[in-house]
Amino acid sequence: MESHQILFYIALMLISARLFAELARKFNAPTIIGELGAGIVLGPTLLGWVEPNEVLRLLAEIGIILLLFEVGLETDLEKLIKAGPRAVVLALMGFVVPFGLGFAVSYFVFALPVLVALFIGGTLTATSIGVTVRILAGLGRHNSSEGQIVLGAAVIDDVLGVLLLAVLYEFVTIGSVSAGNVGSIILFVCLFFFLAPIFAKLVSCQIRRYNNLSDMPGLIPVMLVALVLIMASFAHEVGAPELLGGFAAGIALSRRFFLPFAAALKTDDEFTRRIGDEMRPIIQLFTPLFFVMVGLSLDLSAVDWSSSFIWAFSLSLIAVAILGKLVGGWLLPEPFHRRTVIGMAMVPRGEVGLIFAELGRTAGILVNEVYAGLIIVIAYTTLFAPFWIKWYYHQHGEKITND
Amino acid sequence: MESHQILFYIALMLISARLFAELARKFNAPTIIGELGAGIVLGPTLLGWVEPNEVLRLLAEIGIILLLFEVGLETDLEKLIKAGPRAVVLALMGFVVPFGLGFAVSYFVFALPVLVALFIGGTLTATSIGVTVRILAGLGRHNSSEGQIVLGAAVIDDVLGVLLLAVLYEFVTIGSVSAGNVGSIILFVCLFFFLAPIFAKLVSCQIRRYNNLSDMPGLIPVMLVALVLIMASFAHEVGAPELLGGFAAGIALSRRFFLPFAAALKTDDEFTRRIGDEMRPIIQLFTPLFFVMVGLSLDLSAVDWSSSFIWAFSLSLIAVAILGKLVGGWLLPEPFHRRTVIGMAMVPRGEVGLIFAELGRTAGILVNEVYAGLIIVIAYTTLFAPFWIKWYYHQHGEKITND
Repeated sequence: MESHQILFYIALMLISARLFAELARKFNAPTIIGELGAGIVLGPTLLGWVEPNEVLRLLAEIGIILLLFEVGLETDLEKLIKAGPRAVVLALMGFVVPFGLGFAVSYFVFALPVLVALFIGGTLTATSIGVTVRILAGLGRHNSSEGQIVLGAAVIDDVLGVLLLAVLYEFVTIGSVSAGNVGSIILFVCLFFFLAPIFAKLVSCQIRRYNNLSDMPGLIPVMLVALVLIMASFAHEVGAPELLGGFAAGIALSRRFFLPFAAALKTDDEFTRRIGDEMRPIIQLFTPLFFVMVGLSLDLSAVDWSSSFIWAFSLSLIAVAILGKLVGGWLLPEPFHRRTVIGMAMVPRGEVGLIFAELGRTAGILVNEVYAGLIIVIAYTTLFAPFWIKWYYHQHGEKITND
Repeated sequence: MESHQILFYIALMLISARLFAELARKFNAPTIIGELGAGIVLGPTLLGWVEPNEVLRLLAEIGIILLLFEVGLETDLEKLIKAGPRAVVLALMGFVVPFGLGFAVSYFVFALPVLVALFIGGTLTATSIGVTVRILAGLGRHNSSEGQIVLGAAVIDDVLGVLLLAVLYEFVTIGSVSAGNVGSIILFVCLFFFLAPIFAKLVSCQIRRYNNLSDMPGLIPVMLVALVLIMASFAHEVGAPELLGGFAAGIALSRRFFLPFAAALKTDDEFTRRIGDEMRPIIQLFTPLFFVMVGLSLDLSAVDWSSSFIWAFSLSLIAVAILGKLVGGWLLPEPFHRRTVIGMAMVPRGEVGLIFAELGRTAGILVNEVYAGLIIVIAYTTLFAPFWIKWYYHQHGEKITND
């Protein structure tokens, strides 16, 4: 594809994302629906104007990494650690229940082969951390106590998803799974989460020092984006999703980050403010590309809507996908409405589900009908969850906060 | 190439560009030398750590388009128009003389075939607008009277370069050149330069109006980058270089833009200031990638330094490349020192020369030795011109300004 065409695609994605988001806002719908909708309209489902390619995918990926950086930047580490145990329960239950139910429904009800059923279960596990944080931020709830639980759980969930993907991949290619491999990935990821923010914090202190010395403009955008991208590629090296590198960098640079035994590295409020000011336009530029790309990848044109199998299969799995995440929320020791909205916030599957389904298809495990059914499940959970959550907050907002 | 690797490359390019630029500044060298040097060090010439690919090329291209947008934003249209006639003389002479001399030297002295000599002449014509404006901006001279002449000439020169490329390409593939095609490209490009800023201005007024109405953040970075990219792809459609689309958009949005019969579209200083504030970090992020990419593309490792042909050939052409541009400057009715610095500023060949040489090589017209010789010429003019210009301003700064 020629470069002027890609430039035009990028412009088209940016403009449509904005127009549709403004439209969504006008009709009181979540703005993320506008961005996802722009992708569905521009993509193969409707117009087929924009064809995703390597460049667009990479820009979208930078978008989600930077969004997670921003989320990290606004995160209070203490609150997040406090929410930790509940987040672990939520993540584990929201992983095990959809996986188990998804497997059971596929294997026993629809009589699909074991490997296929395993892949379907896998597709249903992972919450889209991007969609989830965007919904909560859109409602101004990302720093609430339920927001911290959901954020923590979404992070763990993403790690579990990648882990499961690695395990399934090993199982498909080698035919068995070594516990040692799984264990070493878990160890590396834990080490990464412990060391990465410390590393990022030390680097950021150097950047701050240099920023006061250098009279060349542009230090903050260049060095911070470089730091975020390096953390993302480190994350990948240890086996974690890349976007969590962005999150770790954000946490390290947030105003409320602390290092044990490092009281000397005091945060500089002026520097933190400047980081926010200079990074914001860059984040605002890249983030919509990610959500449009998710919409582009939801190819609903391939679905044969007259197939009764697809209807039965996707409706059952939609029930599993929703129930599986709600169960996790209901098990938490929180007031009812808060528990419910926490479960709801974990429902959107988005890009992680797509990666599973895509891998299953290219590996020849998921036939077209099954793949189409999964796409419906992913599209439904991604597109409708934002509405319910907004509606639920509208109905029970005070009870969620005060109870 | 996997995405985490590309992310790492981007980070590496950003960090090295900054480190080398700081180093250059420390040794009182032009900072652009640092960025070009970073590319030479990271690329095949020395370490071979970064391999240019489609994604990196596109990001670099966005970088130069945005840089030209910024240049346009700071341009006073009235001054530029006033500099017009001199810019035309400078551009035409700086095009004809290097082309003619380059052809003559290759054909008569080195006895190369006609087509090869034509390509060599072509490679020597085009000034690198990116390198030139960056040098002048680094010296704070981009808004001076000589800066406006150079800017105008570099723009025209870029158009002439693309035109010549199209003509040579037609000649190579069809064997003849139709004057009609050339004429229609010139017509379209002129129309583009007349209409594009008006279009961009009208769009920007809509963006401004919307900016006051919308309560969703991020309108300016998203819509302005989209506008710039669309203008760039329009520019390509009419046959002009893409970066000139960015320049046209910048001119349209500058504080000093005027439309005949459109006094109603008054500029809004607050909006212009916000555009600058929000676009600056994005421009600062992308621009270094372009200069690093130019450095990466200057592959000096392929040069056989023991070949006496390469030495003789490249030294003769370096003389032609420098003299050819100086002549254009000396013909202007300006004081001597100003004429000289204007000519010097046109010397760097950079990316446009590379495109010519690359096309000649892939078309099988330039053999390896000739290609290597041209790379030396491009590297020399691009890397040394910034030093002379800085030195010349240092020596004769007052005379250049006051005479």
